[in-house]
Amino acid sequence: MRISELSRRSGVPVATIKYYLREELLPKGEATSATQAVYSDAHLRRLRLIRALVEGAEAPLAKIRTILEAIDDTGIDLHRLLGTVQYALTPDTPHNDGPEWREAERSTDELLARLGWRVSPLSPARHQLTRTIVTLARVGYQVDPQTLDLYAEAVHTAAEHDVGRVDPAAPREQVVEYVAAMTALMDQALVSLHRLAQEDVSARRLRGGADC
Amino acid sequence: MRISELSRRSGVPVATIKYYLREELLPKGEATSATQAVYSDAHLRRLRLIRALVEGAEAPLAKIRTILEAIDDTGIDLHRLLGTVQYALTPDTPHNDGPEWREAERSTDELLARLGWRVSPLSPARHQLTRTIVTLARVGYQVDPQTLDLYAEAVHTAAEHDVGRVDPAAPREQVVEYVAAMTALMDQALVSLHRLAQEDVSARRLRGGADC
Repeated sequence: MRISELSRRSGVPVATIKYYLREELLPKGEATSATQAVYSDAHLRRLRLIRALVEGAEAPLAKIRTILEAIDDTGIDLHRLLGTVQYALTPDTPHNDGPEWREAERSTDELLARLGWRVSPLSPARHQLTRTIVTLARVGYQVDPQTLDLYAEAVHTAAEHDVGRVDPAAPREQVVEYVAAMTALMDQALVSLHRLAQEDVSARRLRGGADC
Repeated sequence: MRISELSRRSGVPVATIKYYLREELLPKGEATSATQAVYSDAHLRRLRLIRALVEGAEAPLAKIRTILEAIDDTGIDLHRLLGTVQYALTPDTPHNDGPEWREAERSTDELLARLGWRVSPLSPARHQLTRTIVTLARVGYQVDPQTLDLYAEAVHTAAEHDVGRVDPAAPREQVVEYVAAMTALMDQALVSLHRLAQEDVSARRLRGGADC
């Protein structure tokens, strides 16, 4: 297909497609003359993925490049591909080496050891959790292990479902698109549902007077 | 106690305390002369709460004022007090009345009806969830009811735990402090744990080659 059709079918403006071509986020089409090229379904798939990462996950281009390189490197297995996507889409957490950070880090490490979860020491979500424990401690809350265990168990069920829906036989672009949506957006859904669930439990247990 | 001791014990600078007094977020102390006043443990408790809301939940002063007014209004029962805190700490969601919004809203309504959850039509978390479903649809994902049900069940267990820890006999400031921490920070913990759980499940199911 010509670039105009690629634009129409992907919903991405021609100027933006040209920008992605210059930045080598999208491979060149097959040249049919000095000024024209044709594009394949693979281009369309790649373009849709970039769009999903930009619009759905609000990922910066540098992170998108990292993800696309991992898709093209077939030496990277599915587990590492998922990790690349998740790590690229998790914001960096500022941290330090002060005593309160180290103490919170110990809570995180102990939790993961207790659960027996297989998580890399480099996982940004690990630092995220440590940061939250530090902030809670600063405002006077020591997170107790029971709470963390219960939360962990609850989200592990969700994670089993998420990862269970990855189809190892699907094209890698499609897997990445799903994982990006799952990382960026299903987290939001989880938070919203958590708040709605708190309201429901509160309505059942704490409402005074007539229940109407 | 004098304002200097109030500052020392709360960790809030004297200038900030004076600002809160001017803004009427903190009630005046008992005047002992034209220029001096003494403060009680109630002032200290209130000040610690404001600090927790500012630093822990990053709440703007207008939202903090809403929360403090709900604490002082004893006509508001514990359930409505919790709701006030949660609603004040949930960001407003931009929304519209287009067909895709209405369709996503129907998914949210159907989910809550299916679950039988008691949630106000005004809940900001409801709009948040609808917004996420809209964004997912835009990048090509229709969230299936099974996924939402499973997520909902997982977080409801966490919510039972959260609300179960509210002590109805505790001072209202203390309840609010706990609920604010739970809303702003335990959500973060839930998201981090979800990502860690995804990595664990992926490591178990999708890792190629030798498992080391």
